[in-house]
Amino acid sequence: MTFGIRTRRLLGALAALAAALSLGACAPMNSTTGPLVLESQGSFFVGGRDMKSDTLSSMPAYEASGTVTVEQMYVRYQTPPGGAKNYLIVMIHGCCLTGKTWETTPDGRMGWPVYVINQASRSRSAANAPPGTAVKMGKAPTDKLPTIFAAGHEGAWAIFRFGKQYPEVLPGMQFPVEAQGEFWKQMVPDWLFSLPTPNPTVPSLSELSIRLNGAILMSHSQSGIYPFQPAALSPRGIAGIVAVEPSVFPAPDGDLKPYLGMPIMVLYGDYVDMFQRWAPRLKLCRAISSRL
Amino acid sequence: MTFGIRTRRLLGALAALAAALSLGACAPMNSTTGPLVLESQGSFFVGGRDMKSDTLSSMPAYEASGTVTVEQMYVRYQTPPGGAKNYLIVMIHGCCLTGKTWETTPDGRMGWPVYVINQASRSRSAANAPPGTAVKMGKAPTDKLPTIFAAGHEGAWAIFRFGKQYPEVLPGMQFPVEAQGEFWKQMVPDWLFSLPTPNPTVPSLSELSIRLNGAILMSHSQSGIYPFQPAALSPRGIAGIVAVEPSVFPAPDGDLKPYLGMPIMVLYGDYVDMFQRWAPRLKLCRAISSRL
Repeated sequence: MTFGIRTRRLLGALAALAAALSLGACAPMNSTTGPLVLESQGSFFVGGRDMKSDTLSSMPAYEASGTVTVEQMYVRYQTPPGGAKNYLIVMIHGCCLTGKTWETTPDGRMGWPVYVINQASRSRSAANAPPGTAVKMGKAPTDKLPTIFAAGHEGAWAIFRFGKQYPEVLPGMQFPVEAQGEFWKQMVPDWLFSLPTPNPTVPSLSELSIRLNGAILMSHSQSGIYPFQPAALSPRGIAGIVAVEPSVFPAPDGDLKPYLGMPIMVLYGDYVDMFQRWAPRLKLCRAISSRL
Repeated sequence: MTFGIRTRRLLGALAALAAALSLGACAPMNSTTGPLVLESQGSFFVGGRDMKSDTLSSMPAYEASGTVTVEQMYVRYQTPPGGAKNYLIVMIHGCCLTGKTWETTPDGRMGWPVYVINQASRSRSAANAPPGTAVKMGKAPTDKLPTIFAAGHEGAWAIFRFGKQYPEVLPGMQFPVEAQGEFWKQMVPDWLFSLPTPNPTVPSLSELSIRLNGAILMSHSQSGIYPFQPAALSPRGIAGIVAVEPSVFPAPDGDLKPYLGMPIMVLYGDYVDMFQRWAPRLKLCRAISSRL
């Protein structure tokens, strides 16, 4: 029920991507059958910077002054036997979500254990909280509070195109609505708009791709632009891009040279033209596609 | 180099615990050797409640009013073939950390893939951000800001007993100091003191234990009391308790009946008596031990 908007490069690249996507590492794992055989698994961080602060804590039990590390990117990986010889997929979650998105689905279906990150300032990648504590301590004005938004179920309903309005469901919509409760639990406060530009996730994805020596960066929704930005920094290590429902693209009248030789696949699902938030994104995607 | 303070019950229970700890599910996995064979893996949430709010976002692009789910507990699991027949270990991280603590160590050594949670309001378990956004929107006074503290490297140095003072190292200290940068990246802002009592992690651990039908709850440092509190709610599903360096215990003059028939192991490492933060905890542990 999905259709893809493909760059002209894609036809030549699809075979390679399809091969990569059929790797054991990338194959969905069913939680009720098995076994799953792994050569390795683990987790680590990429990027991050040390920051001195005098507003680490408003409580005397914990020191107010000291150094914290912020803007790092958490990475968890699992590779099948022989998997390192093949392309690796790095999965990047979208707005208000975490790497959990790529694990077990809300209704209990299998997830994808590959390289899964948490964007900077999200989940296991620490947020930069001391500027907010400075306000609590009376050392900074209220307008210096970090911008942290939480997506409500009702608003997210339309953003994710379950229906035009909560709790109405579009005909043929395939999300398992009965499992929505488990999905809402995935959502976390989003610090995106408190982060510097470029988002620290971008250079970290670049560093990770170089370290993996051949990564397919796969984004979702809000993170749609993230695979493109590291590719613009350097094509090193980036074997391809998959953008699932990207919300932001490179400007179609900008410098698209970094992407000309790169396999790119962009996917949109149903109902896009019915939503004012989504229709312009698909239009922009088509405009870029015609230049690649 | 560690020594254990053991309840009298422990001697009889150690065999069972040791057997559980030697399960494939609980065996450390080396990231450079393999393969690891898993019967299943996945992730899900326990607990959580829906909360209506008019301060979800201070930005017009995202709706201010709606419902969010908070206080849920994220759980990730991996089980070996036949693992479900045995006791399962549920690992609970400590202060300022996440479930990452139990994965790959800062210097790249193997972690433990079992049942690993994120405490409520931490990492993949969403924090309750709207009360802070209410202040940013001018709808609540500054003192209603959530208390969020960040542990600085220098303060954490003594809390984790690497040395009396940053960057001095105690003789014989075994933490791989050269990998401290990777460890600091594990630390996240801590919302603990913004949470209701009891901490929502506690009933969620109780629910998880019942669902697993035989869990050994294993805590670390700040989460030290968490295995005891679900046991006080109900012993159902709780096969034993392991508390690694607990910072809080049940009151020794309180009702200890829930723990009388339960295998409990408490572990402290080195240098405890040298630190004012730690010495009273060990003393309290001994007082409780004498009553169990």
